[in-house]
Amino acid sequence: MKDINISINDNFWSTYTKLIRDEVIPYQWDALNDNIADAEPSAAIRNFRIAAGEEEGEFYGMVFQDSDVAKWLEAVAYSLETYPDPELEARADQVIDLIGRAQQPDGYLNTYFIVKEPDKRWTNLEECHELYCAGHMIEAAVAYYEVTGKRKFMDIMARFADHIDSVFGPEEGKKKGYPGHQEIELALVRLYKATGNRKYLKLAKYFLDERGKQPYYFDIEFEKRGRKEFWPGHRNMGRHYDQAHLPVREQKEAVGHAVRALYMYSGMADVAMETGDEELLEVCRRLWNNIVYKRMYITGAVGSQVFGESFTFDYDLPNDTVYGETCAAIALVFFAKRMLKAEPKGSYADVMERALYNGVISGMSLDGKSFFYVNPLEVNPEACEKNAGFKHVKPVRQKWFACACCPPNIARLLASIGHYIYDIKDNTVYTHLYVASRAEMNVEGEKIGITQTTDYPWDGNVGISVNLDGSKEFNLALRIPGGCRDARISVNGQEIDIAEVMADGYAIIKRRWENGDKVEMNFAMEPVRVRSNPLVRANAGKVAIQSGPIIYCLEEVDNGPGLQTMVLPKDSPLEMSFREDALGGVNIITAQGKKARLEAWDGDLYKADACIEYEPVKLTFIPYYAWVNREPGEMTVWVHEC
Amino acid sequence: MKDINISINDNFWSTYTKLIRDEVIPYQWDALNDNIADAEPSAAIRNFRIAAGEEEGEFYGMVFQDSDVAKWLEAVAYSLETYPDPELEARADQVIDLIGRAQQPDGYLNTYFIVKEPDKRWTNLEECHELYCAGHMIEAAVAYYEVTGKRKFMDIMARFADHIDSVFGPEEGKKKGYPGHQEIELALVRLYKATGNRKYLKLAKYFLDERGKQPYYFDIEFEKRGRKEFWPGHRNMGRHYDQAHLPVREQKEAVGHAVRALYMYSGMADVAMETGDEELLEVCRRLWNNIVYKRMYITGAVGSQVFGESFTFDYDLPNDTVYGETCAAIALVFFAKRMLKAEPKGSYADVMERALYNGVISGMSLDGKSFFYVNPLEVNPEACEKNAGFKHVKPVRQKWFACACCPPNIARLLASIGHYIYDIKDNTVYTHLYVASRAEMNVEGEKIGITQTTDYPWDGNVGISVNLDGSKEFNLALRIPGGCRDARISVNGQEIDIAEVMADGYAIIKRRWENGDKVEMNFAMEPVRVRSNPLVRANAGKVAIQSGPIIYCLEEVDNGPGLQTMVLPKDSPLEMSFREDALGGVNIITAQGKKARLEAWDGDLYKADACIEYEPVKLTFIPYYAWVNREPGEMTVWVHEC
Repeated sequence: MKDINISINDNFWSTYTKLIRDEVIPYQWDALNDNIADAEPSAAIRNFRIAAGEEEGEFYGMVFQDSDVAKWLEAVAYSLETYPDPELEARADQVIDLIGRAQQPDGYLNTYFIVKEPDKRWTNLEECHELYCAGHMIEAAVAYYEVTGKRKFMDIMARFADHIDSVFGPEEGKKKGYPGHQEIELALVRLYKATGNRKYLKLAKYFLDERGKQPYYFDIEFEKRGRKEFWPGHRNMGRHYDQAHLPVREQKEAVGHAVRALYMYSGMADVAMETGDEELLEVCRRLWNNIVYKRMYITGAVGSQVFGESFTFDYDLPNDTVYGETCAAIALVFFAKRMLKAEPKGSYADVMERALYNGVISGMSLDGKSFFYVNPLEVNPEACEKNAGFKHVKPVRQKWFACACCPPNIARLLASIGHYIYDIKDNTVYTHLYVASRAEMNVEGEKIGITQTTDYPWDGNVGISVNLDGSKEFNLALRIPGGCRDARISVNGQEIDIAEVMADGYAIIKRRWENGDKVEMNFAMEPVRVRSNPLVRANAGKVAIQSGPIIYCLEEVDNGPGLQTMVLPKDSPLEMSFREDALGGVNIITAQGKKARLEAWDGDLYKADACIEYEPVKLTFIPYYAWVNREPGEMTVWVHEC
Repeated sequence: MKDINISINDNFWSTYTKLIRDEVIPYQWDALNDNIADAEPSAAIRNFRIAAGEEEGEFYGMVFQDSDVAKWLEAVAYSLETYPDPELEARADQVIDLIGRAQQPDGYLNTYFIVKEPDKRWTNLEECHELYCAGHMIEAAVAYYEVTGKRKFMDIMARFADHIDSVFGPEEGKKKGYPGHQEIELALVRLYKATGNRKYLKLAKYFLDERGKQPYYFDIEFEKRGRKEFWPGHRNMGRHYDQAHLPVREQKEAVGHAVRALYMYSGMADVAMETGDEELLEVCRRLWNNIVYKRMYITGAVGSQVFGESFTFDYDLPNDTVYGETCAAIALVFFAKRMLKAEPKGSYADVMERALYNGVISGMSLDGKSFFYVNPLEVNPEACEKNAGFKHVKPVRQKWFACACCPPNIARLLASIGHYIYDIKDNTVYTHLYVASRAEMNVEGEKIGITQTTDYPWDGNVGISVNLDGSKEFNLALRIPGGCRDARISVNGQEIDIAEVMADGYAIIKRRWENGDKVEMNFAMEPVRVRSNPLVRANAGKVAIQSGPIIYCLEEVDNGPGLQTMVLPKDSPLEMSFREDALGGVNIITAQGKKARLEAWDGDLYKADACIEYEPVKLTFIPYYAWVNREPGEMTVWVHEC
């Protein structure tokens, strides 16, 4: 059914897929069912029962509460792919049955409107997330079909998509709307690819092309419904907030709500690919470049401000007041995956890897039990408490949120991490990520097995073995991580001259592969200092530490308080060693640094002509994603240097 | 009538007193009367006419709109002291007559409540500023009396104060309230000192002592009026916001709204002095120390956050998201003046001078026509526009504000700058500020004239001549500015050994002074580098430049954009020269610095192992207070150093 079947067995990522299976999916199931005593109520499952007429009661929760169920089901689907579990599958089937019973005779499906405002369907696309929820449900349904082969959920959602197609479109009498929170665009492309029904692709393209046309649809529907706002003040956010300020093809900069933006760009890339729309792909490239060269944190976090959970402007990357929503980093991975598929360039995979190993997984604790919505690169817990400018920044991960988008989103991404490793394009197998795994793939109709063995990212050695019946000529394109200072590749012990075979960030090994052929790779993983473009105000005079894809940080628990008083000299060697006992087993980096002597200040706040005196201090850096898994305290990614 | 009569004729400060006379007072008169086309309406005078029954209409503006009239009258009083102006005085008399006609038979006087909610008097002290407006009116009335000798305004306000005294107090049947915005406390002490009526001092003390007692009065009145808020959400600000979280004598840290706090501390210092309350004075010292050693910007600005226009916590001094309200720096001057009076220590005068020459006057443009509410120490205009965290920071001064507290506050302070130069304590004349001026003072019943000639702060020479009939033994206490590296004093050509006569920051010259005695002082004004306590996160790795009391800054108009890319090496000499043509005539400081080469980045956002390359650049520093008087652009006080 699929071009690639993969099972991962990786020291790094399998920890996460197991956590998703053992902790996150069960915990979120309890959350969706309100079985957790000290967490925000959810009522998400109950809303479906009420919608199905099987329970009395009021709708509870956010207007987009259904999407939590969708993301849970999508995570379950991916988890079942790796870890078959009849009991979990039966539970998912029951939820799907319930969803089916909640579906209205005309195919409509959204518990908020079914239960609470049945006469207000499709009257407030801007604020009410109907198409957004539909998108998540469609994504879950396609995933469930692809993993289990069961069509029921997908059929339910196809009926809903048909209904949506009957309501929206260019034809006379149909609404000329588009979602306030993009998501359905990419979902409809998935549904098209799973069902082969081009109508869904057309509808996705319609939503994108309609967006931002004048007069603005959101103004039209606002007038039509008597100028009522669902979220008071929401309309003050402006048209940039949901990227409806311009037709999408005229957009040049990533603006507004970061998750909305990146879901939309992902949908644009999908539609561009599936329709061969080079103009639209060029728009995607332009927006991609604006993000990754001007508006992305070193951790892959995006969204520089809490207002509108949004992008701000070029090089505006404050580390402490950042938003960096976990969902936005996840959405950046989605966008990267699609750009990679459209044109396999290592630079896309570099960003995907950057977000995955840093800004995405920082969103979840190492025990899978608590989550960040906001992922700061610099934290002073006292400021979070006492300066309202940091109110959105939590110094510790939270159990669940009233707006619970991030935990189930991280679950569905990490449960499907295997899907991000390879792409096949004609007779080339692209290896984007290095993850210990076995894959079976269909390359030009022939079955090829590829097995990776590696301890990446703690070690730069990757072994790849090729398994096939007999032999086949195809290209194995191996990504050389951007910025890797030294990479080596040998095939069956024979070293390859990488420079000769490099193309767009991949070493392309073209040969007739025999069963059992072995590739050995080694990537230099020595820690390096990273500096940022001097136009980034927040990072001037500072340096960050990186090893392979892992960005490091200083934490108070290792280094004491007052991280801003610590300085890393330019020439101080960085020592890295693997520490089995630390944070689930990670490389720790240490360096000789220095620390301002506070004693010399004797209570003064400002002093003329008094140089700062320093004393030596050993600086200990841990992987950023693993911060605040021990004691709460200060943390910083960017460290003063001298 | 007064102990000191002073007229200043100073190159620095007379510019301001003339601006207040020529620009600010007339402009604000037009503003109060809504005669400015493109500014926020005020209606402040009209409100009084309506209250007096002389015009039909609705109250317009803030609940504390009356205070703008009060501050204007107070500024007029001080201006008349320096620049007699019968026409202006006649206009003020007319306003005072109008105020008298608006006063109610029982003495009550507040246009909002008279016009809009006559039955709601004294029902919402927390939010409605009745006592605050009364305080400003009392201050203006006392000032007007002291300058003109006319009692009418003071009599009006004494009647109102008597009314207030009949409403509030410990006696049975009186309300046990206190103001939501402190100000009346210090005003009542002024009224006491002008009238000799101890009742007003007692009432001031009552308001202070009642504050913060449990159960909270603001809760009691809230319940009483049916739980109605005037400003929706205001009560969520918490009890710290208006310093009612604890009885004032138990307060240890400066918290909440900075202006409220500092007006209150000023009132506390007044009451402590007038009642000999050493316990209360000790509280003032403790709060003073908390501010100046832990919560004050180098410019004398206070208030680290826009939320609540408030203090945050120790060493939390962000330069870019700062509030630093002009009124708060003014209020710090008020507090300093009172602490100085209570105990003449140079450290108080140092802070007073710091605020006056920097954070206060930065609030007004050099032409006296536009004003800052917020006084940032670091500005990126694009951030002010595009990152909502900086929305409160304006990159250029504004003409007038809906909440117009700062412009008339700056006017009343600068018009009375002469009042801040001297204090007399027994037979010691304390010279706190160096301002070219002539003063006549009453020292132990004898008239002494002191004339200062100086070009301070652009030059460190100060000449003082003493004029008296015959001779008199008294102490002349000359403040040696804190941090001054070299100070010299001679009397009639004879050099004094300063170390021998220093006490608490003053060189105390004790002698029998003869008419015509001359003191020559010279203070080293060479520019110095100032660094801040390493606990201040925002200033780590940075340096500020100061000469005498003047704090300097870099502006884009002199240095180009990207100020964060510029670095001042530790050993680069600072060259200072007076520039007649620049910014009204100021010392400009230049230094050889370096600037990150952006070309080397070629669009990259992050680079591993790429040191920042620099190119030489001449850095030009201008006095901070004078920033954005040419072209808008970036500005920073704290500069990266290496």
